Amino acid sequence: MARSRLTPERESELYAAVLDLLGEVGYEALTMDAVAARTRSSKATLYRQWGSKAELVVKALRNDKPVHLGDVDTGSLRGDFLAVVTRTDDCQMEKNSALLRGLSHAVHDNPDLFQALRDLLIEPEMTGLGSMLQRAVDRGEVRPDNPALPYVPHMMIGAFAARELVDCQPVDQAFLTDYVDSVVFPALGI
Amino acid sequence: MARSRLTPERESELYAAVLDLLGEVGYEALTMDAVAARTRSSKATLYRQWGSKAELVVKALRNDKPVHLGDVDTGSLRGDFLAVVTRTDDCQMEKNSALLRGLSHAVHDNPDLFQALRDLLIEPEMTGLGSMLQRAVDRGEVRPDNPALPYVPHMMIGAFAARELVDCQPVDQAFLTDYVDSVVFPALGI
Repeated sequence: MARSRLTPERESELYAAVLDLLGEVGYEALTMDAVAARTRSSKATLYRQWGSKAELVVKALRNDKPVHLGDVDTGSLRGDFLAVVTRTDDCQMEKNSALLRGLSHAVHDNPDLFQALRDLLIEPEMTGLGSMLQRAVDRGEVRPDNPALPYVPHMMIGAFAARELVDCQPVDQAFLTDYVDSVVFPALGI
Repeated sequence: MARSRLTPERESELYAAVLDLLGEVGYEALTMDAVAARTRSSKATLYRQWGSKAELVVKALRNDKPVHLGDVDTGSLRGDFLAVVTRTDDCQMEKNSALLRGLSHAVHDNPDLFQALRDLLIEPEMTGLGSMLQRAVDRGEVRPDNPALPYVPHMMIGAFAARELVDCQPVDQAFLTDYVDSVVFPALGI
């Protein structure tokens, strides 16, 4: 755990620069040197703060997400899903998809990128989704033994993966809202 | 459309060799020269028959699938899904996943591989799945206006994509059967 020597504003600035570079040159060609040059910081600072390129990139992605599933609590499961879907605008969603497409390519050759994605992005979001669903169970919206409960991540990931592969269209708010209403809620018995 | 000059046995032999090579060296390093050498055929024959490396690889994958969705018709939707799931044994499923992982990597750099995958593998399977679902509607198992109907591909692709990403486990018959019973059928109102 490196002690933070950066202000939150400076950290956000750095993350934004990393994402810009990532979009411009891709993960392979993104070097700590390039990040240091672009952000006028020293490589030593970058390594002290983040340890590795993989960690820096994934933390930048995580910082860029406008909504974390764990932070959402509207009082109903439908409200929670809609909050997540509608707080990310379509343009941002398109940008995220492009970045993730680029990263999914890089993941094949970089086990530490995969590990960082799992630890810093996928696991926390799965935990957040788990809490969201648990609250729905506690409120009596979903039966605790509903067999579809463990599969909500699979349904949601399928929406993103198949939208491009099958429909050849980008994911947007209208599609995700319809998908949640047509698939996720009926499967959960809501 | 090249006229077929190969017996079905010879064609299967060629496809098997292509898949072996694909597993050994990956899509990038797989050359028509290597296929010609391995199968003791001429490059001219390969190009006459398949036109391109992308087409040859995708046709080999398609030939290797033990079940095509369009061929399945057991008289009930659950029977159809189970037939698809259980006719592919777990070992074959693991092998297919490894091949598709390798290919999903190559797809990023090869638009013609992506096009061939869409035209020769994804589209026909989507058409087959569509017929399977239409028969369920015709039999009265699923209401024709069920909003989850267009999303069955998304649910199924999610099962495969999320199994490795979230669960870090390979897809097998037990998982797929449970997923279909827990997610797909309830969403379809069965």
